[in-house]
Amino acid sequence: MNLRVKEPNSWTQIREELLRRINERVWQPGETIPGEADLAEEFGCARTTVNRALRDLAETGLVIRKRKAGTRVAVNPPHKATLTIPIIREEVEARGAEHRHVLTLKEIRPLPPHLHAAFPVPPGADALYTETLHYADDRPFLYEERYTNLEAVPEMSVAPMDKISLNEWLVQNAPYTTGDMTFFAISADTALARFFECPVGTALYVVERITWNSDLPITHVRMTYAPGYRMRTRI
Amino acid sequence: MNLRVKEPNSWTQIREELLRRINERVWQPGETIPGEADLAEEFGCARTTVNRALRDLAETGLVIRKRKAGTRVAVNPPHKATLTIPIIREEVEARGAEHRHVLTLKEIRPLPPHLHAAFPVPPGADALYTETLHYADDRPFLYEERYTNLEAVPEMSVAPMDKISLNEWLVQNAPYTTGDMTFFAISADTALARFFECPVGTALYVVERITWNSDLPITHVRMTYAPGYRMRTRI
Repeated sequence: MNLRVKEPNSWTQIREELLRRINERVWQPGETIPGEADLAEEFGCARTTVNRALRDLAETGLVIRKRKAGTRVAVNPPHKATLTIPIIREEVEARGAEHRHVLTLKEIRPLPPHLHAAFPVPPGADALYTETLHYADDRPFLYEERYTNLEAVPEMSVAPMDKISLNEWLVQNAPYTTGDMTFFAISADTALARFFECPVGTALYVVERITWNSDLPITHVRMTYAPGYRMRTRI
Repeated sequence: MNLRVKEPNSWTQIREELLRRINERVWQPGETIPGEADLAEEFGCARTTVNRALRDLAETGLVIRKRKAGTRVAVNPPHKATLTIPIIREEVEARGAEHRHVLTLKEIRPLPPHLHAAFPVPPGADALYTETLHYADDRPFLYEERYTNLEAVPEMSVAPMDKISLNEWLVQNAPYTTGDMTFFAISADTALARFFECPVGTALYVVERITWNSDLPITHVRMTYAPGYRMRTRI
């Protein structure tokens, strides 16, 4: 492809051509690509136009720019997945089922020792422990165990938890700035086996999530999904 | 906080103040915030400066701008996690262990029917099936089953698979544009139980990943992790 035409190329056209060379491996991963001046000459445009295109590619992580060493094609470019804290009701409804939740336990509890490091609620602050069962068309869908730092979300004590699940209430009322997610597998104990109507020992998929608003921990939730559940994301 | 000072505020200062109002819920999730003209007057700056700050917040998904309806605070703002395809060797080494891999099977195979929809290798194209065992300090770490579309990666037939794992070789040699990841739990069958030295039926965490280079499917990999493994990410 010869980009040297009468009209000077726009920076987006140049970005397209650079992208093509990276994706078709005209330039190999790890390879140093020609300098700005050379590219500007090849494309018959200003150096600033090439610079604009390269900056854009560097922001997405496809190339790595070093002041002295020039620009290299990234070996393992990051791919970004957009992770939104899902509203369980919406996830169930997206599967064409009706969502229902039952709050089975709600009490002020001391934080269990194994959470102290991961979920550092200030000493003396109350944590509200809740257990919520989520159903899809009356089939068990998700078992939710949650500790919430009431100091971070004082309004929660008056949340209408029978009408709206804490998951949905917190998404709408407790903005978070960062979060930490962990994914793993467990074997169903007797309580989980009873809820999911499956044999004890069945492999279950679990997500644990902690969210913060700046330095303030908001909530620690452990979500155990029904047997066979699969979580999907695009990268 | 009164931002009306003698010096006009920069757009980044205004963005900071808007961010504060969103995070401290001066403006509630879902609420329509004041218009650009009102904010420009309040902050004593040009409307274009407010516009620049709002555009930035809209790009990160914190506010939603509609031409007629004005600007609303997002109810469930997206948080982006950067997902890079991990190099297993580096993950093992980051845990302070030594990585070793053994390629136990490598053969041209027809794609199993259950993969036809998810991994549409062109009819007649060869898929290379490989099984790789990954160890951390001689403890079993990961069981990798992979189908690779040789039409997408012809050079793979000469990859030095005993020296470098296919995972690492593909990351370095087969750039991808999109991918699809699925996370779930399974019970160990006899083969997995033998490899992981665990009882049959033990809950194991599984990641399946398909990558494409534009429309060309590259590889479908199923990674089963050792009992107790947890995958973490920040949002």
